[in-house]
Amino acid sequence: MAALALHASVPQSQPFIPLPSFSLSKFTQSSDRRTLLFCAPPQLHHVRSEMSLCVGTHLIPHPNKALTGGEDAFFVSSYSGGVIAVADGVSGWAEENVDPSLFPREFLANASNLVGNDDEVNNDPQILLRKAHAATSATGSATVIIAMMERDGMLKIANVGDCGLKVIRKGQIIFSTSPQEHFFDCPYQLSSERVGQTFLDATVSNVELIEGDILVMGSDGLFDNVFDYEIVATATKYIDVGEAGTG
Amino acid sequence: MAALALHASVPQSQPFIPLPSFSLSKFTQSSDRRTLLFCAPPQLHHVRSEMSLCVGTHLIPHPNKALTGGEDAFFVSSYSGGVIAVADGVSGWAEENVDPSLFPREFLANASNLVGNDDEVNNDPQILLRKAHAATSATGSATVIIAMMERDGMLKIANVGDCGLKVIRKGQIIFSTSPQEHFFDCPYQLSSERVGQTFLDATVSNVELIEGDILVMGSDGLFDNVFDYEIVATATKYIDVGEAGTG
Repeated sequence: MAALALHASVPQSQPFIPLPSFSLSKFTQSSDRRTLLFCAPPQLHHVRSEMSLCVGTHLIPHPNKALTGGEDAFFVSSYSGGVIAVADGVSGWAEENVDPSLFPREFLANASNLVGNDDEVNNDPQILLRKAHAATSATGSATVIIAMMERDGMLKIANVGDCGLKVIRKGQIIFSTSPQEHFFDCPYQLSSERVGQTFLDATVSNVELIEGDILVMGSDGLFDNVFDYEIVATATKYIDVGEAGTG
Repeated sequence: MAALALHASVPQSQPFIPLPSFSLSKFTQSSDRRTLLFCAPPQLHHVRSEMSLCVGTHLIPHPNKALTGGEDAFFVSSYSGGVIAVADGVSGWAEENVDPSLFPREFLANASNLVGNDDEVNNDPQILLRKAHAATSATGSATVIIAMMERDGMLKIANVGDCGLKVIRKGQIIFSTSPQEHFFDCPYQLSSERVGQTFLDATVSNVELIEGDILVMGSDGLFDNVFDYEIVATATKYIDVGEAGTG
């Protein structure tokens, strides 16, 4: 299980608009008229300035795989507004005497080398999937998710398989990727073999982030074992995402 | 409950690439090696040509509201690749002696008038929310979702509240919006009153569609009462979305 906890923020060197804190008190006062609209007025926080991600990471190998460090990999780049990725090695390769961790690690090492050095990939996570895949020579396969944030807050996501990403805003999940699988426990996967999927099979989506949004990206090990409400409760408990990553 | 069943398609007058049909048979044969990758090779269906939506619609009022036609509204436009919207009137207004259906109906009538006639809204569902809201004079409030498809298959979505949209590809949901609410049964809503939300509170997301994708858009009345697997089973049963809308 690899998990990244992220926080969209405005660097302090940028123009900054003080934000009134979001309060639930107005809503609870109106519980006698539940479906009406006694809610806070819109804030100014949507005025965009340059945005970037603050990132904390944590990797918990499956107990049976702890000695070898598990089969997940991730990378974080500060390119543009930030680039984050998680890859989860498909464990079935162990039955073929192939170390399932090699493919995802090499894949993300290649992706990491491409970011910032290849104009074609810098604004397109799907092209990054394609080029990192082409550059990977290890035998194996992996589910992979890559998200790239532009400076204006647009987060571009390319996802193959059952890794995932959720965006938490004001204490609720406002965006989730959906997993892709062929059948139970056989996710879409990028592979060393021709029968696997390609970048063309990625689900490509974008979401507009605003300052203070929290991103949680991880492998299926996270999302299959931790309920959304637990993810939200944990992620929102920390202001420092580095701390949240280990929480 | 308002529901739109949609189907992304390539008009027959456009260049057309014959597509091998998707088959699960290859996957089920490999159930002895479940996590490996005996899956179909990528198809050519990602080659883009001009795309548009085929749309079917259906509205089932809440039984208590059937006599007045319910409190939901929707519109469909063929502008560009297609524009679709659902608005759900907030029923709490009935306690204030306001007909909850007036606001969503006027809102979407205004939105419908703007599409195709206002360059600023034509490529931006969030701006369409803003202008339709500003043009609406009825008292009331509504949850609203608008999706606009461009000719290259990019679907742009702006969502305020607990209406929703799901994209089904090859029999599985690959994209879902997430509902926004202040607390249980009090969704984010666009309102005639200053205390409601605005277009700035919309969750804005995009997803790249490919030919054959099925979209299901509806109010919370659909998604709160029908499981995802039922939606998928129903939507994929029909080739003709007009038929699916009444199925």
